[in-house]
Amino acid sequence: MRHVLIIGGGFAGLNAAKGLGGVADINVTLVDRTNHHLFQPLLYQVAMAGLSPADIAAPIRNLLSRYRNVRVLQGEVSSIDLDRKAAVVDFGELTFDYLILACGARHSYFGHDEWEEFAPGLKTLEQATEIRRRVLLAYETAERNPSESDRKRLLTFVVVGGGPTGVELAGAIGEMSRFTLAKDFRNIDARQARVILLEAGPRILPMFGEKQAARAARDLEHLGVQVWTSSAVTKIDADGVEIGIERIRSATVLWAAGVTASPLGRNAGLEVDRQGRVCVEPDLSVNGHAHVFVVGDLACSTHQTGKPLPGTAPVAMQQGRYLAKTIRRDLAGKPRQPFHFVDKGQMATIGRSRAIVEVGRLRLAGFAAWVVWLVVHIYYLTGFKNRTLVVLQWAWSYLSFRRGARLIVNKEWRFHNPAKQEPATGEKRP
Amino acid sequence: MRHVLIIGGGFAGLNAAKGLGGVADINVTLVDRTNHHLFQPLLYQVAMAGLSPADIAAPIRNLLSRYRNVRVLQGEVSSIDLDRKAAVVDFGELTFDYLILACGARHSYFGHDEWEEFAPGLKTLEQATEIRRRVLLAYETAERNPSESDRKRLLTFVVVGGGPTGVELAGAIGEMSRFTLAKDFRNIDARQARVILLEAGPRILPMFGEKQAARAARDLEHLGVQVWTSSAVTKIDADGVEIGIERIRSATVLWAAGVTASPLGRNAGLEVDRQGRVCVEPDLSVNGHAHVFVVGDLACSTHQTGKPLPGTAPVAMQQGRYLAKTIRRDLAGKPRQPFHFVDKGQMATIGRSRAIVEVGRLRLAGFAAWVVWLVVHIYYLTGFKNRTLVVLQWAWSYLSFRRGARLIVNKEWRFHNPAKQEPATGEKRP
Repeated sequence: MRHVLIIGGGFAGLNAAKGLGGVADINVTLVDRTNHHLFQPLLYQVAMAGLSPADIAAPIRNLLSRYRNVRVLQGEVSSIDLDRKAAVVDFGELTFDYLILACGARHSYFGHDEWEEFAPGLKTLEQATEIRRRVLLAYETAERNPSESDRKRLLTFVVVGGGPTGVELAGAIGEMSRFTLAKDFRNIDARQARVILLEAGPRILPMFGEKQAARAARDLEHLGVQVWTSSAVTKIDADGVEIGIERIRSATVLWAAGVTASPLGRNAGLEVDRQGRVCVEPDLSVNGHAHVFVVGDLACSTHQTGKPLPGTAPVAMQQGRYLAKTIRRDLAGKPRQPFHFVDKGQMATIGRSRAIVEVGRLRLAGFAAWVVWLVVHIYYLTGFKNRTLVVLQWAWSYLSFRRGARLIVNKEWRFHNPAKQEPATGEKRP
Repeated sequence: MRHVLIIGGGFAGLNAAKGLGGVADINVTLVDRTNHHLFQPLLYQVAMAGLSPADIAAPIRNLLSRYRNVRVLQGEVSSIDLDRKAAVVDFGELTFDYLILACGARHSYFGHDEWEEFAPGLKTLEQATEIRRRVLLAYETAERNPSESDRKRLLTFVVVGGGPTGVELAGAIGEMSRFTLAKDFRNIDARQARVILLEAGPRILPMFGEKQAARAARDLEHLGVQVWTSSAVTKIDADGVEIGIERIRSATVLWAAGVTASPLGRNAGLEVDRQGRVCVEPDLSVNGHAHVFVVGDLACSTHQTGKPLPGTAPVAMQQGRYLAKTIRRDLAGKPRQPFHFVDKGQMATIGRSRAIVEVGRLRLAGFAAWVVWLVVHIYYLTGFKNRTLVVLQWAWSYLSFRRGARLIVNKEWRFHNPAKQEPATGEKRP
């Protein structure tokens, strides 16, 4: 029996485990910090109150329960000894014959970790719920605040980073203010909310063609989002954001500007690039360790195009499936083949019924692109139940302009302290 | 214009606000600590991973948005001055012509508040999510724990209190262990989990007939739940529960044993009973203050039957509607009529397809009772969308034996500290 240890239950790890499920002579252990696999591409919908956490997440052990040779353990890996072929997890040590490192990336504040408190990123369900709490609480606080200038600060939302996540967040806030919340308040006009998307580079969505990105910027402006390009953030604090000498007063700042790979690669003594990603061979193994693979956002694979493959779900899924095949070939005594990524295109959505899609030479925008975006995302959502529920919820939101999960849930669960809310919205008590 | 101030957006407050919506010469302000109305009777389903928080909660301001004369403010009331007709809220002061106190009840640990840490109650979404986290985490921790005796403690679940909530929680844990989780673990057999329901009195469900309660106890035992009656808890700590000289080692203890009314009634100087409930007149006003009403779990209304009306949703809903009518009659110069509760019966559910129902002289148990329970709860769930989604989710759970929301979500949202879990499950690190 060979023991394959997979660290991380994201798209790469889950697909590798599935591909090794039921294979004779192989035992698989998948370790993840959380108990759930997360459909990251729709996480912004949780942050924007459109979907519930459970709609886009499912227990990893349940997704793999049919494979008797796969076990799932919740735990955090702190270090890896490649020579002894062992990983130290918080509940003990696990040895392996094959190791698949698939523990992804986290947010990077470019050396300004102190900004995180004021500008949460969007990688986990906890962060998504926190963003939802902050955005909804800003409207609630503005509704009861008598000061015009405080209200203005509370109804100013800043999203930092003009990639797909930033565009999705900014578009969703714009849409929520203009449609969902329009009739629910008495003292404020939610439609007056300002949404500002900050991008350090010369244009948003640099991974897309110029024409497509320009269309997306126009669509954002239709939703009331101001797009500021060439605007690098120099400071974030409780009062707002600074861009050089300019200051935007804002109670709610969201971070979608940069990621850095999990530190586990570096900690294991592997060669990493500037973003902490582990450089891999054409077969996704690491130099000198043919039985250690790195995949997904943690890997830097440049062999195919000369530049690193993007940190997207399709790359991770194909890499996971490829590794399962590679290990099966190893066991059958067949030679390894290099990983080849099949690029099926890219897309980004900008609120209700607007998106941009690039597939090969095909360029779509507007409603047609949105339909494509919708179909693709629903198709990939894991598990029957999630798909049906998500479609229903979306259909309902689309028809009613409502959002299904507008809940402000506090972090404290005790009743002794039930209403102590974050001072982050900085309401002045009269 | 008269100003009606409603404190609390539960069943009583929401129905009072709806009944006053659109009425000429009346302005209504509803203040609640949270932004959502909660369908309490299904809260145990959130705690047991069957439903998502958003399935049973909706923004209060959205439920009332069609009434232009109703405004909703999120805030916490700290004190009330009945003579000055003013309430102090955390964001300022609100005056009123009419006051409706509808701020409900919370858990009571009978003078042992230190037990709460080890045995959370079930009144809010935060508490439900915390219970879900603890229950699911106990299985996860047991799966990776090498010690037989630790595993036994981790797979022992104690529910304190044999009322409807305790019965529902115990039944759901039993069912989850026997069916939902049965195939998902490799190192433990989830079906071996012990579930113990502790009741201090001589039998569970004392508000039901003896025959019905006995049937419920039998149904619980079919799900593997041990029902211990005449078992008053004398101590709860991190290691388990004590009943006199007996000790049950358990990592997960849930509290469903007692409630106490919100302190706001007492703080306002009103006459309260032993459980902190405000004694009310036949028209639900308080003695000497004809414009101050108390309703729902906070009220003690004994005029109809000689004993207090139960703290249930039907009582609260009927009281809320009655108050709206009474205030409208006041304004029209008509005399007040006493509140009369129309008892439509009571029910409790014990896991999948088992329940007990008492309506007048009708007694139902088993599947038929469960169908009645299901139809009634779906009917009352507020709002179209919630209903459809809940039915679908239940149908899916029923057919597949799965649960839709098996997520362990941590309380911390920062990535710097993503996996620090509560030491409450007390896993021994090897």
